Amino acid sequence: MSRFPVPPREELPAELRGRFAAVEERSGFLPNVFAALSRRPAEATAFFDLHDALMDKETPGLSKADRETIVVATSAANDCLYCVVAHGAILRIRARDPYLADQVAVDWRKAPLPPRMHAVLEVAVRLATAPVEVTPADLAGLREHGLTEDDVWDVGAIVSLFALSNRLAHWAAIPPNDEFYLMGRVARA
Amino acid sequence: MSRFPVPPREELPAELRGRFAAVEERSGFLPNVFAALSRRPAEATAFFDLHDALMDKETPGLSKADRETIVVATSAANDCLYCVVAHGAILRIRARDPYLADQVAVDWRKAPLPPRMHAVLEVAVRLATAPVEVTPADLAGLREHGLTEDDVWDVGAIVSLFALSNRLAHWAAIPPNDEFYLMGRVARA
Amino acid sequence: MSRFPVPPREELPAELRGRFAAVEERSGFLPNVFAALSRRPAEATAFFDLHDALMDKETPGLSKADRETIVVATSAANDCLYCVVAHGAILRIRARDPYLADQVAVDWRKAPLPPRMHAVLEVAVRLATAPVEVTPADLAGLREHGLTEDDVWDVGAIVSLFALSNRLAHWAAIPPNDEFYLMGRVARA
Amino acid sequence: MSRFPVPPREELPAELRGRFAAVEERSGFLPNVFAALSRRPAEATAFFDLHDALMDKETPGLSKADRETIVVATSAANDCLYCVVAHGAILRIRARDPYLADQVAVDWRKAPLPPRMHAVLEVAVRLATAPVEVTPADLAGLREHGLTEDDVWDVGAIVSLFALSNRLAHWAAIPPNDEFYLMGRVARA
Amino acid sequence: MSRFPVPPREELPAELRGRFAAVEERSGFLPNVFAALSRRPAEATAFFDLHDALMDKETPGLSKADRETIVVATSAANDCLYCVVAHGAILRIRARDPYLADQVAVDWRKAPLPPRMHAVLEVAVRLATAPVEVTPADLAGLREHGLTEDDVWDVGAIVSLFALSNRLAHWAAIPPNDEFYLMGRVARA
Amino acid sequence: MSRFPVPPREELPAELRGRFAAVEERSGFLPNVFAALSRRPAEATAFFDLHDALMDKETPGLSKADRETIVVATSAANDCLYCVVAHGAILRIRARDPYLADQVAVDWRKAPLPPRMHAVLEVAVRLATAPVEVTPADLAGLREHGLTEDDVWDVGAIVSLFALSNRLAHWAAIPPNDEFYLMGRVARA
Repeated sequence: MSRFPVPPREELPAELRGRFAAVEERSGFLPNVFAALSRRPAEATAFFDLHDALMDKETPGLSKADRETIVVATSAANDCLYCVVAHGAILRIRARDPYLADQVAVDWRKAPLPPRMHAVLEVAVRLATAPVEVTPADLAGLREHGLTEDDVWDVGAIVSLFALSNRLAHWAAIPPNDEFYLMGRVARA
Repeated sequence: MSRFPVPPREELPAELRGRFAAVEERSGFLPNVFAALSRRPAEATAFFDLHDALMDKETPGLSKADRETIVVATSAANDCLYCVVAHGAILRIRARDPYLADQVAVDWRKAPLPPRMHAVLEVAVRLATAPVEVTPADLAGLREHGLTEDDVWDVGAIVSLFALSNRLAHWAAIPPNDEFYLMGRVARA
Repeated sequence: MSRFPVPPREELPAELRGRFAAVEERSGFLPNVFAALSRRPAEATAFFDLHDALMDKETPGLSKADRETIVVATSAANDCLYCVVAHGAILRIRARDPYLADQVAVDWRKAPLPPRMHAVLEVAVRLATAPVEVTPADLAGLREHGLTEDDVWDVGAIVSLFALSNRLAHWAAIPPNDEFYLMGRVARA
Repeated sequence: MSRFPVPPREELPAELRGRFAAVEERSGFLPNVFAALSRRPAEATAFFDLHDALMDKETPGLSKADRETIVVATSAANDCLYCVVAHGAILRIRARDPYLADQVAVDWRKAPLPPRMHAVLEVAVRLATAPVEVTPADLAGLREHGLTEDDVWDVGAIVSLFALSNRLAHWAAIPPNDEFYLMGRVARA
Repeated sequence: MSRFPVPPREELPAELRGRFAAVEERSGFLPNVFAALSRRPAEATAFFDLHDALMDKETPGLSKADRETIVVATSAANDCLYCVVAHGAILRIRARDPYLADQVAVDWRKAPLPPRMHAVLEVAVRLATAPVEVTPADLAGLREHGLTEDDVWDVGAIVSLFALSNRLAHWAAIPPNDEFYLMGRVARA
Repeated sequence: MSRFPVPPREELPAELRGRFAAVEERSGFLPNVFAALSRRPAEATAFFDLHDALMDKETPGLSKADRETIVVATSAANDCLYCVVAHGAILRIRARDPYLADQVAVDWRKAPLPPRMHAVLEVAVRLATAPVEVTPADLAGLREHGLTEDDVWDVGAIVSLFALSNRLAHWAAIPPNDEFYLMGRVARA
């Protein structure tokens, strides 16, 4: 589940155990990234706080599905299997689209997305792969597509968070849970 | 100080105001990254928690100066002025060396560092710039240079944290405080 | 189905219509690349002849699943949605593994493959992305992993064929059929 | 002539022997690529069929010389000695210009070509080296320079064919015949 | 001072000894590049002649400080510690700005420079790192910013000279003199 | 002959006119780089002094032909038509080989050169394209192939000089003289 030993669940601080239990109840399983990071409770807590502050938010300019789309596109640019598969699953569910995640992961430029999201992904991938080349005009362009100042901050902060997350997942070689591969691909009965 | 508006200090949550006051007292000024992030108190708190968990630590295999060296080398690879200048200042002070930070920022390969730190920087810069190319042998090699399993985790986590930090600083165009440029370059009387 | 007009099926030469009917019967649908290329019957015939000569072959050193693995890894290096999704489906079926195709597409270096296939993919991706850097030692290394001289030729020829195929799919913007996304992911009743 | 054994000419299928004899009579020698590929008659036949369908064609928007220009520029981008030298020779002859092939191979951007061909080469080299970055506007731009829809297809198909051909030549290390180096450089008496 | 032996000062030709004495008197120390190159008096003389012809010149379109700015930006793109530190020092003095050199070295795109110099640096860094991509429009653009034809020549010639200089400094591993690191950072009493 | 005006020959300083006359007599024509640089007599003199000091030298470890081979390989890496064609011609003559220049320009890795020259070119091209990646082991490796300390200096200095020369030729768009294209390709009667 990681290149680094993972402590037994019962030895974790209560706060973290509570958070894990809640995720597990919601998802039906505990995503491997939780277990892998639990080796460092303070870091894990900070990481999940950052994650929730940026991803559990729905605004007119940047829906939850849009946020997952940013994660999938930039994580694919970083070749991160964990994030592409896990957030690809969440994207399929949020967007109610069984194809979009693969389309975004392999070639976001041709993905069937609105012009607003094409503009977002172009700047997001630039920040992920060549951050020094981001210009003031890039941020201004997002405003013209209807993103608020807070949405623009979120685009940059989400890309930045997953720049961290992708590298941790590579470093510890965290694999996605098997469950993620199929989630959102077949209609529920 | 940032491309995004910064809230007045007195409107911040007490916890953050306390943290800022402590930093200010220790450094003599408030580094711009604190003000820039204060726009989002929850994100700021998580970020500084992560930072302190990884950077305020001294181990036989990875001293505080070594940790700053990793930050300077990878932030230079990301062309991040804020982190190169601010953490370059801290590196000069921690290492008591007025030259090392510039040497590491411009060409870490020729910097006068021990073989252990050359091995650390080679893997750290790889994780920063081409994370998919990090191999199990890279991590094993660090163990052979005397890093513990926890030190190895820290190398990866520090690089990951500054992958985030460098991108936020580019996104918000956070400039280093003037004070950092000279810190640690001249002997104190 | 393509940026270029596709001729009506009944106007195609008999040979091609026969080939299409056979594929359709075997797969249950006609993969879009057939329709897209049918605009140029001579080119289509040559392309499918080349394809079948290289892919419909099972040898001890390079099984059909191995051949699809090469296609998925190098097509992902070329960001080709059509080939990643269509040949990913075939790989899942050939390898009877619902996870392998995504693992190979996003990060073949960490995919659970035998050393032989890791050696094959390293050289194959090099030929796909930096062909001038392939060395005689690269080919000799494949022999040491048990590939015959014919298998080694096939590795190079498969990579070369999909260098062509990936670019045609990008040029004409050929989308994968919806059917491919789910194929091989769920156990048949 | 190749890293792989080449079968004796008399053992080849009659169809291929006939094709080789025709080429030899026309050129005065058999280009090495024919011998190298003859190891695999079905693949060789398909390859030469594809080649002839795309290269032996003269249209107002894309002359035979223009087609060779595309081959030289993209093969140079792939560092393929065989294709640069052999098709450079053909380009000199087709364009009746002893300098153009070297100019296109080393720096097509400054080569003395009409704006139409500069537009073609810019898109062709992009498809050769970064296929995911080709946009619908790239193809539309070629139409504005007078290329028909079929010419545009041919640009993409030629680049794709030589993406294959360059890689096969690298893989098998096929050298150009000595004759090609001088062809078209000196006026015939 | 260099990976190559440096001859004793008194064995140098009189012309070179005179030049070194003059530099030493002006700067207070002899920059290491002089000693390192003195191994080859003819090459050293030619190099310093070229340097002085291009750098000791003040024009309305390209001041001495502007010329040093070009050197710092392109030398940073080449990761050359000697030139970044030594010419960074000269830039601080010429521009009477203790911050500019570090800003230009790490991220010239965000450095507080006039539009004219942003245009100069964009083209200069392109010539340094991807010379084939320089276009006639790049040179024309500099004229529109007020550079004369001679200034434009100088931009190209300065970048070219330091393309040489950066590589010699890497090859011989010439370190900057300690004095350069602090020069121009503190106001003189 | 250049993007910049070239002064009439008779207005040049006597020293330069003498040098040009000597070259012209030896070669039968004046290479365009002389005329293009004559716009700046002091720079031209320094450049040709540097050139002659490094290129007109024959040592057991690095013959004149070897030096031209370095120029052709690194100039090709910089896509410099002038230097590839002009020095390609000189290489054909020095090496008495009508094929070698094209082989080195397009793919030096497969060129029929001795191991010593393969080692030289690998390090030379690294210095030309990624100078920070040159290591002490690279220089030591050349000594093991029989190069003296002075030969090793020359390898670095030649690469550095043509890093300059290639960029000046791109900046001024200096075309090779027509004569160079054919020189050394046909046996003299």
